[in-house]
Amino acid sequence: MFNNKLVESLSKSSMIRAMFEEGARLKKIYGDDKVYDFSLGNPEVEPPVQVLETLKNYVNRGEQGLHKYMNNAGFPDVRQKVAAYVQKNSGVQMNENNIVMVCGAAAGLNVTLKAILNPGEEVIVLAPFFVEYGTYIEHANGKTVVVNTKKDSFQIDVKAVEDAITEKTKAIIINSPNNPTGVIYSRESLESLNQAIERKEAELGISIFVISDEPYISLVYDGAEVPNILSIFKKSIQINSFSKSLALPGERIGYIAASSNIPEVGTLISAMVTLNRTLGFVNAPSLFQKVIADNLEVAVDTESYKKKRDLLYNHLTEIGFKCIKPDGAFYLFVKAPIEDDVAFCASAAKYNILIVPGTGFRGPGYVRIAYCVDIGMIERSLDAFAKLSKEYGLR
Amino acid sequence: MFNNKLVESLSKSSMIRAMFEEGARLKKIYGDDKVYDFSLGNPEVEPPVQVLETLKNYVNRGEQGLHKYMNNAGFPDVRQKVAAYVQKNSGVQMNENNIVMVCGAAAGLNVTLKAILNPGEEVIVLAPFFVEYGTYIEHANGKTVVVNTKKDSFQIDVKAVEDAITEKTKAIIINSPNNPTGVIYSRESLESLNQAIERKEAELGISIFVISDEPYISLVYDGAEVPNILSIFKKSIQINSFSKSLALPGERIGYIAASSNIPEVGTLISAMVTLNRTLGFVNAPSLFQKVIADNLEVAVDTESYKKKRDLLYNHLTEIGFKCIKPDGAFYLFVKAPIEDDVAFCASAAKYNILIVPGTGFRGPGYVRIAYCVDIGMIERSLDAFAKLSKEYGLR
Repeated sequence: MFNNKLVESLSKSSMIRAMFEEGARLKKIYGDDKVYDFSLGNPEVEPPVQVLETLKNYVNRGEQGLHKYMNNAGFPDVRQKVAAYVQKNSGVQMNENNIVMVCGAAAGLNVTLKAILNPGEEVIVLAPFFVEYGTYIEHANGKTVVVNTKKDSFQIDVKAVEDAITEKTKAIIINSPNNPTGVIYSRESLESLNQAIERKEAELGISIFVISDEPYISLVYDGAEVPNILSIFKKSIQINSFSKSLALPGERIGYIAASSNIPEVGTLISAMVTLNRTLGFVNAPSLFQKVIADNLEVAVDTESYKKKRDLLYNHLTEIGFKCIKPDGAFYLFVKAPIEDDVAFCASAAKYNILIVPGTGFRGPGYVRIAYCVDIGMIERSLDAFAKLSKEYGLR
Repeated sequence: MFNNKLVESLSKSSMIRAMFEEGARLKKIYGDDKVYDFSLGNPEVEPPVQVLETLKNYVNRGEQGLHKYMNNAGFPDVRQKVAAYVQKNSGVQMNENNIVMVCGAAAGLNVTLKAILNPGEEVIVLAPFFVEYGTYIEHANGKTVVVNTKKDSFQIDVKAVEDAITEKTKAIIINSPNNPTGVIYSRESLESLNQAIERKEAELGISIFVISDEPYISLVYDGAEVPNILSIFKKSIQINSFSKSLALPGERIGYIAASSNIPEVGTLISAMVTLNRTLGFVNAPSLFQKVIADNLEVAVDTESYKKKRDLLYNHLTEIGFKCIKPDGAFYLFVKAPIEDDVAFCASAAKYNILIVPGTGFRGPGYVRIAYCVDIGMIERSLDAFAKLSKEYGLR
């Protein structure tokens, strides 16, 4: 009666939904403070004070036209500010005609993929990855090609990517700092990837876009460097969102920046702007376009995230779990002590710990722990993790 | 290098873009106040005072969690309020599980079509219509079947619809008050359409959804009745937006209400909620969900729109143009005095009047005049329309 393929996939995904329902069930029985929910990437923090002040100022001033349609690409002044910001960080010359304001990164990815893909063209994604990339690619009638990152470091396996490139390859999606691993791809690996792409383009006579999904770009610790994608790859498209950096996930606000080094970038932007409209976004929410444009240099307090990371990372590794110390984002990707990560998550739930199997990110054998939560909850959870470790004889 | 089919369609649509550029050119030469731009459905009015007050209250109170993710369907309390509102107006029992908050009506239509269509299934649209329906249907891999409304009244030609129904028909889109005609479909025609649908469903063993796109539902004049679609059609899906009724088009906020009379409506809603996420909307903007939920009974001042309609309608018919007096929306759909409506719009542009050819709405031989503009501009334009009438010897 409905979209059959979709309805079928709904019943498949019921395992994860069952886990969320399990969480709700546990909270009812044991109380909210005795359940340790690390399952969602929903920032616990409120937006920075400057952002809330900007919002208040716009709303209280009652500026005319603040809630009206504008060009489907976004307000010209907002796009100018974003272009200047992107240019400053990348060194690549950008102006407002390189920018499309979008309803968050998920919107930006859907718009971008639909703008570049012809039916059957391939997009390489680096596992583990946010699996909805696959759905976005499918919506654009493309084909997802999964390439694993390196086994121990989760860094890009450039050789494997090069081997996966075919004459149908149209793009590669990069997400660094990464969800779910928290890893930042090294400059060396990105430059090496660029060379591999250029070799393959020359060999096969094709054009490959590098799509960089960057919601975690401001969440970086210990002074780690996140190499700028626009400065490395010629045909690169940056997609940013303010969901994590300004803790505004509910407001759906982000942007696409298409490098001016892309041949015929004007046509690409026209296609994106048209799709922004016809895919149903129409434009990024108007009030928050104005708000973020005045706060491009602002970010949430990364020190508090760092504290949470350190507390949980130090404890988990002390009690015998294995995990790369991530330089960015707000996830720990912990090796499950047994092969079956789904079973391990079920074990964790016995101690009221809610975590997500790596299988859900095409990273089997691992679990994702989202530490964008109240630090009090992390403190209360430490003992439960110790019991979990003990059950598996890690200490 | 990009999506070929899309890039091709971009060059086709350049005629309309050329007209917009012509508008900008004219304004530069003659000044803003000497160009009469009736081309866009972008409400000139500001949101009602109550709406702006609600917005201020939320922002100044600084409620926690106002900008966070929520269920992809929207905040539960918002959905409850919307459900109660829809139930009150339709008499159909509704609760929060019948409601999905969406990023405006265009989002709602994309989500709905993708949720119900299997590849190749047909959707009937009633011409003239907002042509992007066709693009939305294409994105959902469906096929658009255009059925003309009645020649003089733009009312539904039920016999023609019935004849167009095949075993592949999955839905019919209704838009009343209509863009571009401003016509409200009569209760009689809707009830007759319902009977035709039920006959065909029984005959062909199929299920047909009625998708009602209702952005203009609050813009009604002279006490005209807009029959409630949920109360007439069993398998009906209402899509509403606050772009016109609350003059918030830039904020992208609306809802889907799926009738509880739809068999397995829970599965349909699950599909919609999943698509809301994977199509890239994720959720309707959080702050404005809260704002509209407190203003469901509010609407912009329709008296001011009525004044504009009357001023322009009376003048145009007096000077010899032919036009149905529309009961709703903010458009006049005027018969072009020559067959070629595109050529007629070009003639109008000579008098600095910017209007849109009916051909763009699959209503050739007519032009659409959007009167959601400053009344001063309408007053200043009257003389230009008189000259245009004179050129065609209408008076």
